[in-house]
Amino acid sequence: MTASASSRTPLSPTPRSTPTRLKDRARTDRADLDAVLDAGLVCHLGVLLGGTPVVLPTAYGRDGDTLYVHGSTGARSLRAAIAHDISVTVTLVDGVVYARSAMHFSMNYRCAVVLGRAVEVTDRDERLHGLRVVVEHAAPGAWSRVRSPNKKELAATTVLALDLTEASVKVRTGGPNDDAGDIETGGVWAGVLPLRQVWGAPIGSEDLATGIAVPDDVLRRLETILIR
Amino acid sequence: MTASASSRTPLSPTPRSTPTRLKDRARTDRADLDAVLDAGLVCHLGVLLGGTPVVLPTAYGRDGDTLYVHGSTGARSLRAAIAHDISVTVTLVDGVVYARSAMHFSMNYRCAVVLGRAVEVTDRDERLHGLRVVVEHAAPGAWSRVRSPNKKELAATTVLALDLTEASVKVRTGGPNDDAGDIETGGVWAGVLPLRQVWGAPIGSEDLATGIAVPDDVLRRLETILIR
Repeated sequence: MTASASSRTPLSPTPRSTPTRLKDRARTDRADLDAVLDAGLVCHLGVLLGGTPVVLPTAYGRDGDTLYVHGSTGARSLRAAIAHDISVTVTLVDGVVYARSAMHFSMNYRCAVVLGRAVEVTDRDERLHGLRVVVEHAAPGAWSRVRSPNKKELAATTVLALDLTEASVKVRTGGPNDDAGDIETGGVWAGVLPLRQVWGAPIGSEDLATGIAVPDDVLRRLETILIR
Repeated sequence: MTASASSRTPLSPTPRSTPTRLKDRARTDRADLDAVLDAGLVCHLGVLLGGTPVVLPTAYGRDGDTLYVHGSTGARSLRAAIAHDISVTVTLVDGVVYARSAMHFSMNYRCAVVLGRAVEVTDRDERLHGLRVVVEHAAPGAWSRVRSPNKKELAATTVLALDLTEASVKVRTGGPNDDAGDIETGGVWAGVLPLRQVWGAPIGSEDLATGIAVPDDVLRRLETILIR
């Protein structure tokens, strides 16, 4: 994803995007937002459907200060998002925090919450760009070696853009915040059970002709570790 | 989690919880819902905050037909959820689907979306039960060996219950659904890059006294694989 000058500027959260609790976990650097968004694989989109805030997972991508999502023109959730205030949340769970008391159990995580008005992208070039950003986020390096979207596919696809100006990032790391009394009493194990996401070996499609090698972009990805 | 008789009954989705697209991915068996909810670690809660559907990750647990979440009484998102229609979404990403054309890239995933009115649990016994369900979901087997919530902690904690009657489950598995023409043209690799979640080695807290062994419930968990 494109590194922009804004990566070094602080986030400008509004009251509704400012964490009111556990402030010690809030990060205010724009680079933290980009890092979480770039590390996630799916986001959770919050849209109003019939008055209910409905949460749906979807692919996404980031380019500079813009987050893109896409979907079928028939997708009710995307139609409901257009020109409305929505939220997009990306969460990475890094581990379970085991404490000495039940109420201090927790998770280590990185979470970005972006709020804003979803704008439907209508310009043909920007639509293609947004789709490329989303596909490249899911599968880095794949776009240029596969067939591009055709007219029919483009007509059936909605691309939404969300500005990254109103966002918050929370990160929790480390062990439990146990009460002094529980630490003193002792005897109970406390710590973190880390959670890792790793890639498995690529599985060729059943309809794949023989002799087609796994592409370099997939092989390169196998060398990366998603979480930790 | 408790297996209930309802595990064998079909889901009873309403129009707002019925997937309108990609119906082939919808699952209608109640056991599928339980399986996704029991496999996830965090959920994404959708609540209305100032008119915007805001999505926040949180811990949860399931007991039979009830999903519990908890949080600080000071948490704005939980206060906004009480006695309101909310959604709780649990998503597990199982892999990235590489296709022969950009628009057929996809993800393999399991996703449960639960809609309903969040009810604040006020009965002391059920509050304790709900907290136990949430903690045991995050850390199975840990509740009984750690200090229970005290009066002060209970007073500072909100427990919400959500009925599981209105829910939908979607599951995508397998390779890409490429166009016949792209398969015929050939030459492009297609398949799945599986994604796995695995536990790392437990990390004892910095303030842990020497000689305290990693508990059996944590060791047992290391033998489980979260995804795949």
